[in-house]
Amino acid sequence: MAATSLNAPNAPLLQKTHQTHVFLKPISTIPCQTSAKRFSISCSATTQDRLSVQSQSQDRVFNFAAGPATLPENVLLKAQSELYNWHGSGMSVMEMSHRGKDFRSIIEKAEADLRSLLNIPENYAVLFLQGGATTQFAAVPLNLCAPGDSVDYLVTGSWGDKAFKEAKKYCNPKVIWSGKSENYVRVPSFDGLELNPNAKYLHICANETIYGVEFKDYPVPCNPNGVLVADMSSNFCSKPVDVTKFGLIYAGAQKNVGPSGVCIVIVRKDLLGNAQEITPVMLDYKIHADNNSLYNTPPCYGIYMCGLVFEDLLKQGGLEEVEKKNHKKAGILYNAIDESKGFYRCPVEKSVRSMMNVPFTLEKSELEAEFLKEAEKEKMVQLKGHRSVGGMRASIYNAMPLAGVEKLVAFMKDFQAKHA
Amino acid sequence: MAATSLNAPNAPLLQKTHQTHVFLKPISTIPCQTSAKRFSISCSATTQDRLSVQSQSQDRVFNFAAGPATLPENVLLKAQSELYNWHGSGMSVMEMSHRGKDFRSIIEKAEADLRSLLNIPENYAVLFLQGGATTQFAAVPLNLCAPGDSVDYLVTGSWGDKAFKEAKKYCNPKVIWSGKSENYVRVPSFDGLELNPNAKYLHICANETIYGVEFKDYPVPCNPNGVLVADMSSNFCSKPVDVTKFGLIYAGAQKNVGPSGVCIVIVRKDLLGNAQEITPVMLDYKIHADNNSLYNTPPCYGIYMCGLVFEDLLKQGGLEEVEKKNHKKAGILYNAIDESKGFYRCPVEKSVRSMMNVPFTLEKSELEAEFLKEAEKEKMVQLKGHRSVGGMRASIYNAMPLAGVEKLVAFMKDFQAKHA
Repeated sequence: MAATSLNAPNAPLLQKTHQTHVFLKPISTIPCQTSAKRFSISCSATTQDRLSVQSQSQDRVFNFAAGPATLPENVLLKAQSELYNWHGSGMSVMEMSHRGKDFRSIIEKAEADLRSLLNIPENYAVLFLQGGATTQFAAVPLNLCAPGDSVDYLVTGSWGDKAFKEAKKYCNPKVIWSGKSENYVRVPSFDGLELNPNAKYLHICANETIYGVEFKDYPVPCNPNGVLVADMSSNFCSKPVDVTKFGLIYAGAQKNVGPSGVCIVIVRKDLLGNAQEITPVMLDYKIHADNNSLYNTPPCYGIYMCGLVFEDLLKQGGLEEVEKKNHKKAGILYNAIDESKGFYRCPVEKSVRSMMNVPFTLEKSELEAEFLKEAEKEKMVQLKGHRSVGGMRASIYNAMPLAGVEKLVAFMKDFQAKHA
Repeated sequence: MAATSLNAPNAPLLQKTHQTHVFLKPISTIPCQTSAKRFSISCSATTQDRLSVQSQSQDRVFNFAAGPATLPENVLLKAQSELYNWHGSGMSVMEMSHRGKDFRSIIEKAEADLRSLLNIPENYAVLFLQGGATTQFAAVPLNLCAPGDSVDYLVTGSWGDKAFKEAKKYCNPKVIWSGKSENYVRVPSFDGLELNPNAKYLHICANETIYGVEFKDYPVPCNPNGVLVADMSSNFCSKPVDVTKFGLIYAGAQKNVGPSGVCIVIVRKDLLGNAQEITPVMLDYKIHADNNSLYNTPPCYGIYMCGLVFEDLLKQGGLEEVEKKNHKKAGILYNAIDESKGFYRCPVEKSVRSMMNVPFTLEKSELEAEFLKEAEKEKMVQLKGHRSVGGMRASIYNAMPLAGVEKLVAFMKDFQAKHA
């Protein structure tokens, strides 16, 4: 070993990147005095740092994608370090029986941590299900109403509209308000809503990923036996939420809390047990609630990743602290837009602008392609707006560092200075 | 750096395990002369070896779980090396937009490789869907028949039975044969089957994971316009299959080809487009076929893992070679059972014994707990039979190395010698 360590000056160096972790240069670039088969690694790092052995030495980009989206760097590094052999179990989480004690400890901790984060009362079930929110567009009416039942949809963007259309297969939904004619730029005043007094539920999409419209407060169903249902996919765990205002909350994981393929449902237990006869067994909430999400094989690795994210959010101080960070990030970005004298424009009403998804256009729309190209050169990617809207969109979920937003804002100012 | 490299004798050593890869001892155990913040690593390894930085130094176990199940070691190591930064993209596969060019290259390669492996003709669509086989128990009848249509189910185990029960919600299924009264030990002769001449499809479970019964040949529907449908979850890609014998094949990934949360559907294109009105959009095959599995966010990371497995199976020489290995593994295990003079017993008829899932009991059933405990001490885990059957079950999917089966057989012989 001594001979090997003498090779240190020629050895690959673990490098500090701009984002606080260490990389190993590609093995193929290693010069080596004695043998191509022997090398040594030297580095300086605290024992807190996690080592990541990469086949690339390139840095991380700032990824503004709307989902799947950027994940916390320390979560990725932890997942990487554990991928091959989880906690000495001799296997990857991907290989574990979902009925074994190791995976049970993972899903139970994930649920407990999520309950802490959102202060979820005992009379609500927490389900980790297969798929994403679109599957729930069917599951919600199938579980909460009979075929003829009336339900209300308040539509503030494309996702709410899709949820409404899917519900038509299973009950009698009505759009009580839609922002479509205005191109989805606001949430209506709750006072003027014509809510159906018989509606089994009132459905909202708490944050519209495409148009960037976010509810800051919530309407109350007019039917005293009705419940509020929210698709929270794109702002789930971005801020505290009073769960007791809702009968049911659902969220695809791939925005704020994990990879795609997991959908979390938080549902008041008294609403369970009335699924329509045609409900596929995998869409029946009661079956999953009765079996602690282990009726059959769940998306185990995705649930594990969500658990790592929940742990990280708790370490950050919980959702109050997370909200402060998100507020700051969104604030500097919206300010940059509003202070650009019209060079950049965000069409959404200020009071309901999303803290997660910031859509904006350029006054000179012919510059948009250049904006995207130049941003990508600076390692800021996925800024193109949704194909149904155009322009730009910066998704700045929990895991987007402040540094990413600051870099984007600095870039925007530079770009404006060049092209004003 | 020179000073650091002098610490080499006290540094953590990358160790060769019995399974051809290197580990790093836990960082917390590192003795260090000058500062807890500085350390160096020395090792010998070929550039072919993949480095894996682990928080544990424990070896892999041999994992005989029925699913989720053991994955190929080189696939796990590749996934680990790429987890944080895929091919220099600056992000994890888990963070990629499913509409970006990087992920599209991943899913397109996965599909192309699967088409090569199974020689799937162009007139079949390949879909990567959310969830597992149980979701398909509903999707199959919803897509292939109208509410009143007749369909046949040939039931050789619990999964076929569950598929039949789910189909009752959507059409008029009939069990044309069931092995339940014999506790599922055989496949019937196809000659004597009372097939319905009007059945839209005939459904089989090609390999019953719990009871270990596997079709070695396939029945032909009696309706000339009917098709054969197979749940191949637990023997998918374990051997060549003539896809053209089937109208539809589906398989949850978590046995042979990936982690849980992905289901692969191979369906003849002319069967698409007739889904019942009540079909949830996420269960409508035509929508996914028309959108190359990207109608909305798919389980991206799971699909990536499946792609790595397909690549690995091709490198092994394709499914002919894979089948030879599986045949050998299953052969030595069944031989050990059959030559034990009744100490071990497998109830399944020899001609249809599964190459993937080998259930067996001990003549002295009181020894089963000890068998499991002793096996676990030897790092052979998840050998307990399904709760509905009891006894033992060794699942020996593609990724179970021959060495694992050989070790199990040696252990069984030792155990018998001690207790005969």
